[in-house]
Amino acid sequence: MTVPLSDTDRAYLEQAVRIADRGWGRVHPNPLVGCLLVKDGTVIAEGWHAEYGGPHAEAMALTLAGDRARGATAYVSLEPCRHEGRTPPCSRALRRAGVARVVYGAADPGGDSGGGGDELRAAGVEVVGPTFTERRARALNPAFHHRFRSDRPWVALKLATSIDGGIAARAGEQSWLTGPEARDEVHRLRASVDGVMVGARTARTDDPRLTVRVGAPPRVPPVRIVLDPRATTPLDGALLRTAREVPVWIFTGPEAPDAALAAIEAAGAVVHPVGSAGPHALDLDEVLRRCGERGISALLCEGGGRLGAALARADLVDRLALFVAPRVLGAEAVPAFPDWPAPVGAVAAPGPDSGWVPAAPPRALGVDSLLVFDRIREHD
Amino acid sequence: MTVPLSDTDRAYLEQAVRIADRGWGRVHPNPLVGCLLVKDGTVIAEGWHAEYGGPHAEAMALTLAGDRARGATAYVSLEPCRHEGRTPPCSRALRRAGVARVVYGAADPGGDSGGGGDELRAAGVEVVGPTFTERRARALNPAFHHRFRSDRPWVALKLATSIDGGIAARAGEQSWLTGPEARDEVHRLRASVDGVMVGARTARTDDPRLTVRVGAPPRVPPVRIVLDPRATTPLDGALLRTAREVPVWIFTGPEAPDAALAAIEAAGAVVHPVGSAGPHALDLDEVLRRCGERGISALLCEGGGRLGAALARADLVDRLALFVAPRVLGAEAVPAFPDWPAPVGAVAAPGPDSGWVPAAPPRALGVDSLLVFDRIREHD
Ligand SMILES: NC(=O)c1ccc[n+]([C@@H]2O[C@H](COP(=O)([O-])OP(=O)(O)OC[C@H]3O[C@@H](n4cnc5c(N)ncnc54)[C@H](OP(=O)(O)O)[C@@H]3O)[C@@H](O)[C@H]2O)c1
Ligand SMILES: NC(=O)c1ccc[n+]([C@@H]2O[C@H](COP(=O)([O-])OP(=O)(O)OC[C@H]3O[C@@H](n4cnc5c(N)ncnc54)[C@H](OP(=O)(O)O)[C@@H]3O)[C@@H](O)[C@H]2O)c1
Repeated sequence: MTVPLSDTDRAYLEQAVRIADRGWGRVHPNPLVGCLLVKDGTVIAEGWHAEYGGPHAEAMALTLAGDRARGATAYVSLEPCRHEGRTPPCSRALRRAGVARVVYGAADPGGDSGGGGDELRAAGVEVVGPTFTERRARALNPAFHHRFRSDRPWVALKLATSIDGGIAARAGEQSWLTGPEARDEVHRLRASVDGVMVGARTARTDDPRLTVRVGAPPRVPPVRIVLDPRATTPLDGALLRTAREVPVWIFTGPEAPDAALAAIEAAGAVVHPVGSAGPHALDLDEVLRRCGERGISALLCEGGGRLGAALARADLVDRLALFVAPRVLGAEAVPAFPDWPAPVGAVAAPGPDSGWVPAAPPRALGVDSLLVFDRIREHD
Repeated sequence: MTVPLSDTDRAYLEQAVRIADRGWGRVHPNPLVGCLLVKDGTVIAEGWHAEYGGPHAEAMALTLAGDRARGATAYVSLEPCRHEGRTPPCSRALRRAGVARVVYGAADPGGDSGGGGDELRAAGVEVVGPTFTERRARALNPAFHHRFRSDRPWVALKLATSIDGGIAARAGEQSWLTGPEARDEVHRLRASVDGVMVGARTARTDDPRLTVRVGAPPRVPPVRIVLDPRATTPLDGALLRTAREVPVWIFTGPEAPDAALAAIEAAGAVVHPVGSAGPHALDLDEVLRRCGERGISALLCEGGGRLGAALARADLVDRLALFVAPRVLGAEAVPAFPDWPAPVGAVAAPGPDSGWVPAAPPRALGVDSLLVFDRIREHD
């Protein structure tokens, strides 16, 4: 149940959503939150959750506003928290500061932290919220919401594709499909997760670094992960040469030679032996559970197509970020979606029934387009 | 050479571009043009080219403004025309009305009509323009600009695709890939052209009507065209059953049986025999030249993949409009881009080099995304 909003309220709340983004890369696994204090038609303070463990968005805005907060309206992208955690509860802080009205977007899914809206209401504050659909709430802070539903990390699959669904012009080759704006955005995505994962063929062919080299550095650099059944990741490649600077985890299978494992460990990487699910295929459920146990709650898989498809077949992909380049690669291309699950629902009848919905409108990145889809599952 | 603009000038000019759109479907093959008269920071009149043969955008705005136009700034999306045509020249009308300043977007490519900017300058009016790059100018009125370069119609290829570049789940089947918003936009596209064309397989499989059934009706309903070498378009299908209401042209090849041609003509359609370029392939250059001779200056090809690819191989596609649905169709799908020309330029190095550039930012249409690309050719 969401509450309808006036145009003015909506505009301020959307501004709070944009402000929330300033915490990008710094607050994960906490959610991005933005807060705006408005009085007599004027914004008197902006706040955002800026650093993991630091003040919440509401607290920052209240500090900046001081006494002027009395009688103001607070616009918050997420329901104010109610629980005493690392910081005092925001519902109490808003109440004590004399805020007259609170308009919030997403409902707090947290067992302990949730209920701040009701508490404020009970204390006589006018509260409008939640005003976002659950789908929108989850699209804004997907990994945060995912944690309340699963022990596995939230998984985003990023692929740069041609308009005919290719990811490289030919097998064994790397192709630069997209332009610099798209590549900058990939670095930004990396900054928002705990782990960046690729398949062994991508590690061998592209020799990627998988570090965050553009934009503000993340609070914790993401662990770099290769799913590499036979322990083939090149010792002189970009990943293993830098394994002592930013962590590298190599997931291997039963067939990996001991000597290769020893060499990988000697390079400073962590070897995670897991079970096999067939030829050239590690047990993905085990991989993800292991990641979850080791503190990884959000994972960006950067391909290739085979690993992405294997994750999709196991229904482990929560978000699909496609950077679509305006080119056709043709029949020899490495496919982005080999053996993906068959189309869900009838495609003989009109209507959106594929199980994927846009997380945001499509976006131009130079000549490329970014399409982001969230997985909608039956039980959601 | 384009002229830089202040933020205020830019905002008004973009508003003129949006106003131009009101002539959609009514002015082709003339360009869409919008005009804004602004005085003392207030918009005093809006004008647009509303109907083929009717007043130009500037004339409409000047009529509405009357005496107030004296001393105003005119923002026009296209350079004011200079020639005496169906209507008096706009450059003279602006001058006589006492407009003090003219800011315009696209240069007029016309031999006779061009030069209005210079004429106004010579008469002492302050003129700022052209301010659009040639690429933007052409993207806004592609068919209009195309006419100055070619006798062939401007060709837009529209395809609804999955993210893996499929256009139907299986051969011989029709699939509804996109939602209602995308289908409405296709009707809008049809309203802007003189002809809507499909391949014979699409005519046989989908039995489309190809009429404009959503939105404002176009000034002239587009001719419906099938490239049908063997004259197989079903006599009891949607096209031939309605051939007396909206024109149907069937292009056929040497192998078409006389009886089939006679039956198609008896149904009220026009048969155009043209040469063959191989099995299942009419001579596309001849087809397009014939269309051009018969007054078709803009053509929307709605597929399927084979016809689109044949046009692309002959480098006859000027615009590509992709309605991308959030679904994967898999290996059995009918491909959107079979045997397209190999990627232009190196894909081993970064950079946009495919010969296609976005005509506009990508757009959300319900759960689908519209990506529009214009062809950039070497000699452009
Ligand atoms: N455009 C892009 O966004 C993008 C991104 C990445 C890669 N690429 C390109 O794509 C190509 C590589 O992609 P790819 O699809 O061929 O391979 P890939 O997905 O990168 O790697 C597949 C390999 O990963 C290992 N693996 C472990 N567990 C797996 C599982 N459960 N399922 C699937 N694979 C598993 C196997 O290694 P073993 O073979 O050692 O057994 C498997 O062969 C390269 O040309 C690269 O340049 C493009
Ligand atoms: N998603 C979409 O946007 C969309 C749009 C259209 C169609 N479709 C689907 O696509 C499928 C049909 O597409 P398709 O690619 O198989 O065929 P198509 O492009 O619709 O038709 C190809 C046929 O057109 C005729 N043709 C004449 N001159 C040609 C030339 N120079 N080059 C190529 N063809 C020429 C030939 O007819 P003959 O075979 O009689 O010789 C040829 O086989 C259907 O399943 C339909 O539902 C989807």
